[in-house]
Amino acid sequence: MRLRNKPWAKPLIEANPQFITTDPKKYRSAWQERFKKKAPLFVEIGTGKGQFIIEMAQEYPERNFIGIELQTSVAAVVLKKQLELKLNNLQLICANGSGVSEYFENGEVTGIYLNFSDPWPKKKQAKRRLTYPTFLEQYKMVLEEKGHLEFKTDNRGLFEYSLMSMNNFGMVFDKVSLDLHQSEEAEQNIMTEYEEKFSQRGQVIYKLEAHF
Amino acid sequence: MRLRNKPWAKPLIEANPQFITTDPKKYRSAWQERFKKKAPLFVEIGTGKGQFIIEMAQEYPERNFIGIELQTSVAAVVLKKQLELKLNNLQLICANGSGVSEYFENGEVTGIYLNFSDPWPKKKQAKRRLTYPTFLEQYKMVLEEKGHLEFKTDNRGLFEYSLMSMNNFGMVFDKVSLDLHQSEEAEQNIMTEYEEKFSQRGQVIYKLEAHF
Repeated sequence: MRLRNKPWAKPLIEANPQFITTDPKKYRSAWQERFKKKAPLFVEIGTGKGQFIIEMAQEYPERNFIGIELQTSVAAVVLKKQLELKLNNLQLICANGSGVSEYFENGEVTGIYLNFSDPWPKKKQAKRRLTYPTFLEQYKMVLEEKGHLEFKTDNRGLFEYSLMSMNNFGMVFDKVSLDLHQSEEAEQNIMTEYEEKFSQRGQVIYKLEAHF
Repeated sequence: MRLRNKPWAKPLIEANPQFITTDPKKYRSAWQERFKKKAPLFVEIGTGKGQFIIEMAQEYPERNFIGIELQTSVAAVVLKKQLELKLNNLQLICANGSGVSEYFENGEVTGIYLNFSDPWPKKKQAKRRLTYPTFLEQYKMVLEEKGHLEFKTDNRGLFEYSLMSMNNFGMVFDKVSLDLHQSEEAEQNIMTEYEEKFSQRGQVIYKLEAHF
């Protein structure tokens, strides 16, 4: 997700180190100290404007959440919401999602969420997709043994690719939905901003849950 | 697929043992002798009225094909077409698809096609689905080492189940299409009668190619 550059974004992030960091390597294996209480850690890679991770944090107070967002202007929008809500089980990272294994210790994470990631549709861009094997390798490292991955998208090409990629990597599928909003899970599904908008237009939403 | 009972079906099948058998165990490991020439063997489980397997046999003369259909009245419809065409690379079996490993020797088959199989939507019917593990076990036995499975359906629930089932069984996905008729493969896709009818109504067709 890209937003117009916001001049206030960087200063706001720098002024609020209690909620957001641009140097996540510093907290590797020590993330629990940044939360009010110790709890299983769930990470969303690519928060967009943060609707999903904020609602998850509100819905599941017995879990700790970290939202990673690369774009400063977008991360600052999430931060603004958090400054109002002050959820004590939500932390933010403004940095590149491709560094996940440098940000987290092996086994430090219980769950990873990938929501409506950039599809990078061209073949030569495949290695940038968040379900490309080099990323899966990192998720495998940081996830605890029973940890799992949840992946949602409305992009057919990306979902087809990801089913292949995760299967070929040896991941075990726990649940596949080819029309999430028409499924049994729809009721408990927490939507991203993007998901809300595109599903209203009749776009099918795909979801895969899997573990290593 | 079910058709009204046709009194002429059984006699027609019995009168044409050169093209169809109701006792496939008899030819186990000897199927090649029933064809004009020896060639890699491809089996469709559940032919319906046979449009797919007949067009495949016409399109790929360098392969041998066997169509299995349980319903006598349906198998007889395929036989009637074959009696006109007399394709020397097509044989038919009128018997239950659940006996595949009794009909073929280990490694005797190069490819298996499952097209628009009965979805058996209720949970307690799961074991009747042609992608249930007991069936996959049989396909694994009869397929040669590099043999593969191609599965098409318009039934979302069955496709979701089958992605899970085949992944959990340890199968390796070669190609996934979540809208076959909009994909690159559409041009070379050979349709079943059912597929033609339902895709014209705007129904999405799913396809999975995988190997063991």
